Amino acid sequence: MVPLLETIDEVRRAVAAARASGKVVGLVPTMGALHVGHLRLIERCRAEAGLVCVSIFVNPTQFGPNEDFARYPRTLDGDRRLCTEAGADLIFVPDVATMYPGGPDSTFVEVPGLTGILEGASRPGHFRGVATVVLKLFAIFAPDLAVFGAKDFQQQLVIRRLVADLNLPVAIRTVETVRAPDGLALSSRNRYLDPDQRRAATILSKALRLAAGAVAEGERRGDRVRQILRETIESESLARLDYAEVADAETLEPLDELMRGRRAVALLAVWIGTARLIDNAILSE
Amino acid sequence: MVPLLETIDEVRRAVAAARASGKVVGLVPTMGALHVGHLRLIERCRAEAGLVCVSIFVNPTQFGPNEDFARYPRTLDGDRRLCTEAGADLIFVPDVATMYPGGPDSTFVEVPGLTGILEGASRPGHFRGVATVVLKLFAIFAPDLAVFGAKDFQQQLVIRRLVADLNLPVAIRTVETVRAPDGLALSSRNRYLDPDQRRAATILSKALRLAAGAVAEGERRGDRVRQILRETIESESLARLDYAEVADAETLEPLDELMRGRRAVALLAVWIGTARLIDNAILSE
Repeated sequence: MVPLLETIDEVRRAVAAARASGKVVGLVPTMGALHVGHLRLIERCRAEAGLVCVSIFVNPTQFGPNEDFARYPRTLDGDRRLCTEAGADLIFVPDVATMYPGGPDSTFVEVPGLTGILEGASRPGHFRGVATVVLKLFAIFAPDLAVFGAKDFQQQLVIRRLVADLNLPVAIRTVETVRAPDGLALSSRNRYLDPDQRRAATILSKALRLAAGAVAEGERRGDRVRQILRETIESESLARLDYAEVADAETLEPLDELMRGRRAVALLAVWIGTARLIDNAILSE
Repeated sequence: MVPLLETIDEVRRAVAAARASGKVVGLVPTMGALHVGHLRLIERCRAEAGLVCVSIFVNPTQFGPNEDFARYPRTLDGDRRLCTEAGADLIFVPDVATMYPGGPDSTFVEVPGLTGILEGASRPGHFRGVATVVLKLFAIFAPDLAVFGAKDFQQQLVIRRLVADLNLPVAIRTVETVRAPDGLALSSRNRYLDPDQRRAATILSKALRLAAGAVAEGERRGDRVRQILRETIESESLARLDYAEVADAETLEPLDELMRGRRAVALLAVWIGTARLIDNAILSE
């Protein structure tokens, strides 16, 4: 079984040893409750890295006071087995005091611009927590590359911006969303769904497919695409829309009009019962 | 003459080469306008490091809109000569676009607690700028150690806190303040003083000496020590007090009473003409 490291010193020793033998160091930051989507991140990391590191840390600072930090699924035994099978070389499982030696209200990093909208508007402080914990993980691992999933589309943009703005020597890789056969994007939070809700949750990918289909057939008006997203979500009685947006895929600026040469992305956040699910689709390349 | 490096890539190559040959990498971050105080920082760095790096960057984000960014002294030729004589191995002289690829209003780091008081209260945003640029320099150099001066007492505390909070793998060294024979702490901003002001500026170190003397003779009341500082500064007609504080030397919490076993520091900020000077002294060990 892949080793579990609990301290920063152990991580630094493992990374230093790998680097001394010329290995590229890769990091896959996760909150655990691993699924096939995470395995793809690990595989992507293995394609480039000689030392494949996974971190599992349910980061308190990226959850709001009324969010699901306490009940977020913790499944370390299963996670470790999956990481072993996927070929990870080590798992870092710090506690909160290790990651936040000065406490959760200590030094933080803020990425202006991208972080006040969409997920940032619905979840104030979320991206401050994400950026801060990722910066810490980068300081601990000093990885050559780090891998993130496209399902958290805004997150990977925030992290790319963080890295560029702070001159961090880390290459960021983004891996396509993995979906169940019926279209539902894999997510640790899918575990919150009962069977009826699980069926209803396919409405997100359906809405994105309809929106992408309309654009493929020539629709260029942002508002019309947003309307397709909204109306599709509203057609499902178990779903409650948080936001539906059509935005520039680099800046997340809402688009009035889709244009050739400007990549657009449709973004959804939807409540199904007590699960808040997000998904997205690129609308044009 | 020691080489001037303008790009991050050049720095990373030099650091990687040094590290490959087993050298410890040290960094002395400065804003240039070097004086003997800076040379002591470089010497301190040489005591531990096989690659001694100096950065010279007048960091715009740590200056307020009405501060002296534009007229801050820039003396690169002289700085380079001094660095050469002091045995530095390279000087990093980035421009603003290199240090702030996303612009000066992009991603920043904030160190709560220590940064809202004293210098932070008088210079809003100052420590955000300092912490952010130092974090960037650490990301660029990945130094094993970095050296700062004790004259900027609060700054070295903020940086120690930053490093601890963010789990950064950098050892911070603080070097004692270097003083002119008449007691004035060396500072690049002393260049703003005309001869009368230069004479008046000795009032800071005089006030600190009187305060330390009172404590040595048994004075334990924080307010009384603050009064000594204040009245001494007020006795100099060319001086205008910004703040005079007696605080815990770790937390900068104002002290009602000086106690054995709790290190205290006296801190001063004083305007002399258009120069804002700071100085400090440890009151008890």
